Amino acid sequence: MGQATAMTRNEDGIGAVLGVLKQQFADRLQTGDAIREQHGHTTTWLTNQPPDGVVFAQSTAEVAEVIKTCAAYKVPVIPFGTGTSLEGHVNAPAGGISIDVSQMNKVIAVNAADLDCRVQPGVTRMALNTHLRDQGLFFPIDPGADASIGGMAATRASGTNAVRYGTMKDNVISVEAVMPDGRIIRTASRARKSSAGYDLTRLMVGSEGTLGVITEVTLRLQGIPEAISAASCSFPSVKAACETVMAVIQYGLPVARIELLDAMVVRAVNAYSKLSLPETPLLLLEFHGSEAGVSEQAQTFGTLADDFGGTGYAATQTLEERNRLWQARHDAYWAMLALRPGCKAVATDVGVPISRLAEAVVKTNEKSAELGLIAPIVGHAGDGNFHASVLVDPQDADEIARTESFISWLNDLAISLDGTCTGEHGIGQGKRPYLVKELGAAVDVMGQLKRAIDPNNIMNPGKILPA
Amino acid sequence: MGQATAMTRNEDGIGAVLGVLKQQFADRLQTGDAIREQHGHTTTWLTNQPPDGVVFAQSTAEVAEVIKTCAAYKVPVIPFGTGTSLEGHVNAPAGGISIDVSQMNKVIAVNAADLDCRVQPGVTRMALNTHLRDQGLFFPIDPGADASIGGMAATRASGTNAVRYGTMKDNVISVEAVMPDGRIIRTASRARKSSAGYDLTRLMVGSEGTLGVITEVTLRLQGIPEAISAASCSFPSVKAACETVMAVIQYGLPVARIELLDAMVVRAVNAYSKLSLPETPLLLLEFHGSEAGVSEQAQTFGTLADDFGGTGYAATQTLEERNRLWQARHDAYWAMLALRPGCKAVATDVGVPISRLAEAVVKTNEKSAELGLIAPIVGHAGDGNFHASVLVDPQDADEIARTESFISWLNDLAISLDGTCTGEHGIGQGKRPYLVKELGAAVDVMGQLKRAIDPNNIMNPGKILPA
Repeated sequence: MGQATAMTRNEDGIGAVLGVLKQQFADRLQTGDAIREQHGHTTTWLTNQPPDGVVFAQSTAEVAEVIKTCAAYKVPVIPFGTGTSLEGHVNAPAGGISIDVSQMNKVIAVNAADLDCRVQPGVTRMALNTHLRDQGLFFPIDPGADASIGGMAATRASGTNAVRYGTMKDNVISVEAVMPDGRIIRTASRARKSSAGYDLTRLMVGSEGTLGVITEVTLRLQGIPEAISAASCSFPSVKAACETVMAVIQYGLPVARIELLDAMVVRAVNAYSKLSLPETPLLLLEFHGSEAGVSEQAQTFGTLADDFGGTGYAATQTLEERNRLWQARHDAYWAMLALRPGCKAVATDVGVPISRLAEAVVKTNEKSAELGLIAPIVGHAGDGNFHASVLVDPQDADEIARTESFISWLNDLAISLDGTCTGEHGIGQGKRPYLVKELGAAVDVMGQLKRAIDPNNIMNPGKILPA
Repeated sequence: MGQATAMTRNEDGIGAVLGVLKQQFADRLQTGDAIREQHGHTTTWLTNQPPDGVVFAQSTAEVAEVIKTCAAYKVPVIPFGTGTSLEGHVNAPAGGISIDVSQMNKVIAVNAADLDCRVQPGVTRMALNTHLRDQGLFFPIDPGADASIGGMAATRASGTNAVRYGTMKDNVISVEAVMPDGRIIRTASRARKSSAGYDLTRLMVGSEGTLGVITEVTLRLQGIPEAISAASCSFPSVKAACETVMAVIQYGLPVARIELLDAMVVRAVNAYSKLSLPETPLLLLEFHGSEAGVSEQAQTFGTLADDFGGTGYAATQTLEERNRLWQARHDAYWAMLALRPGCKAVATDVGVPISRLAEAVVKTNEKSAELGLIAPIVGHAGDGNFHASVLVDPQDADEIARTESFISWLNDLAISLDGTCTGEHGIGQGKRPYLVKELGAAVDVMGQLKRAIDPNNIMNPGKILPA
């Protein structure tokens, strides 16, 4: 089940590296089964492929030390933040050393005047926001999990706020990284914009640990808006909801969030989070701005939604109500799992141009039904990015085969609509063939870059690039 | 004067390539002196280094043909859009073939529903906006010149709107490019966001023609705002003006433009554009949004400006007045030249974190005065990016030496403030030593990438990377 390709192991090198690292790191090198497994992939149906050892690094210098040791013996290095990736990024198909940066969790500096901050890679997004709150600032990127900033940068993560604030691509100002030869680089200054040479920041963001280990991140921050208002609106069909989203984007309404839940997800969320939303397709919205601006946005949305049969459009009245609504959205994954106890969720992550969103979501619903699969859909609709999560019985070989066929069909559909096989989860292990389908010869250029930076393929091998 | 380093010429190869291209392109290969000089650098004091021939390409296939021919003989290829770059990007220090894409000037598709479009690289920003206007759309990136979209992508250009809409980095969705071996790649799908592998789009944006020739660009567009309002506000000092900008950014006021003109520029602009602005430091502003939103923004700005002694804050009342104000801003370069007839302007382009802007601008004014130079300053202040343009008598060797010393000092100052030696003009020829000062070991990584993609160094040699 899932992706289980193993790669050739360099047994001698791995043995030698473990010996050297034990000298250097003592108890901060761990080789017990439980810890190793926890540092392999654990979140989806992909096979767990544990590393041979885990080093809990505490500084950039230590990360460089581990990488130099691994480089000397040509042993794989796999960076690890919180392990919440969904595409097998932390798996070790050829074994090797996991560098766990969770102890590198300091907020180094907050420059409130410049709306930026420097953090170590193990700081999680929630810890960062807790740290920032007193200064009236926040960091908007919010994948479902409380992921580490380093991991979010490495996978070019985004989430519900991306329609307004962009993805990690847009919010990382620079990174410090240790390259595969142990060199430490900083990719950019702290200027808000620059034309200084190749954009190494954007090259490292989304490189999934295959070009180096990110050891520090400088981030753009936002002021907490004067006013925030959340709302929900029900629709007679997924098509009507998607068409409303299209109208909102085309109108240029600066929604901070516009999330789609299909009827099945609404049902799951009602049950799981004790809500009583009408069990039809739903949009969840958030507006940020001044008091007057937010109320104007909310009113404009109402007018647009009317045109597509939106009903029950209601703004939350209190912070508590708003938090409850978004908590329910963030819990959708668990709520869906609860729809079918014992199942595993198989995440998908396609994105299409907004004009094709309605068509893509409708076809996806039809296809999963045709294959007899349960695949509720949530979407960061304003970005044309949606997730159909197939709830699979891991014991049912036939269902697994149908699920694989569904995923393949869905990725192909997105690509045929000039979209992408991954809006925010990354390529990791399983999507490598789809990357080639999506970008063709450009993937050869990625291979050239990879070989130039990492000629011995020690940095997170078996990810992004085709075998 | 300026940068004149010549590189070794491959005479035999160049001769052979000219022969082959003459067969292939007949009159669309030009080798006359006037055309060759016009395709070398012409805009600033940098030496003109003309290519050996200019091919007027009409399609991606033709660009690929030229590149393959040049690759076979290891002859340099220099992409050319409108030639408005300020850092010698189109110079041919080792000779070679200029590929002029100005005839590739079609808007291929406008997807109004997705707020994007596909254009050939020779489309200029003004031509694009003329094309888009009827559909209620616009493309916001506005360097002073009417540059080509391909050139703007290649230099990661921006301009006055970047504080609100970002730079080319943020507004290019994907590019088609011909690589140095003649392969044609497309860097991304048309999805609004994607995590599909290395961000080749952002690698090509800002690569200044050194990695390949951009033959098509997919751009994000914006809806023309319901309301636009421009305003100007005078300040008792450059420091007060900069501090107001800092306050605006920290407040999160979504200004579309916030431009700084120092007193000398205001004087120049008054004379050149027949305006009667008070001859003290000035901020020019533009607000985009709904009618109510724009008026709220304008009011908030007024309150912030009051705190720093802003006076004469006045909104333009008509479209004509607004156009006149921005035309004056865009003509500032010519207005400054008129301050000292017969002089050449030497552009600088540093950027610093906003919190250091006041300090940087004040010190820059002091330094130019100390050196006896005339160096008026305009700035995209909301981005911390400003241009001191030294007006130099090209016959005065001593003044030239002082100018070179000033530029060196200014770049060092920006770097010492954790800023950049180039906010938007790019590295080109003359700033290569400063790139190394700014980013250190990261420049070695850029070199690794360059050698991997272009092992024979045929793509725009002598730019970005140190010799």
